[in-house]
Amino acid sequence: MASTNGLDPEVLAQLTSLRESIDNVDAALIHMLAERFKFTQAVGRLKAANEMPPSDPEREKRQVERLRALAAEANLDPEFAEKWFNFVVEQVIQHHVAIAQDELDA
Amino acid sequence: MASTNGLDPEVLAQLTSLRESIDNVDAALIHMLAERFKFTQAVGRLKAANEMPPSDPEREKRQVERLRALAAEANLDPEFAEKWFNFVVEQVIQHHVAIAQDELDA
Repeated sequence: MASTNGLDPEVLAQLTSLRESIDNVDAALIHMLAERFKFTQAVGRLKAANEMPPSDPEREKRQVERLRALAAEANLDPEFAEKWFNFVVEQVIQHHVAIAQDELDA
Repeated sequence: MASTNGLDPEVLAQLTSLRESIDNVDAALIHMLAERFKFTQAVGRLKAANEMPPSDPEREKRQVERLRALAAEANLDPEFAEKWFNFVVEQVIQHHVAIAQDELDA
């Protein structure tokens, strides 16, 4: 296996350029995730104030179907899109439960 | 617990508006993830063609530090950002291993 040290300079330049693009996309993703959490935290506060359950399986099912379709159009593996969404939603529900608990404790 | 059916119309309107924003952000996230995978697949092909290992722990360490700092600036939980990144990288490494295997099989 070659390390980056022993690489052809042209290959190294290609790798560096691709990594710069990945870093740019990652910065955009982190900022979009931050914005998503602002909205889901607002949903969490609204649900807690109105005594609604933190999760909504019917809504999540529709979201998964929509995101799988969007992923397929964008040539992203729909299985990955679904696993990724479930990972994010799991975090959000944990936050919602914590907010509801804070309301009960307040 | 109230269902959405029995909600105050104003609360329901707020919930619907927040959910529309979440759906917009999710569409953006799916498209950015699709773009990220295009770049990481190009990295995978470059690495396989040049017999480089599919993962690069030093690079990943720098990425985690950078993304935690970006998350903190954007008021996103850095722990979540790191878990999220590890989840995405795990998928990418699986793809790189598969691409390297295809090169060996070809």
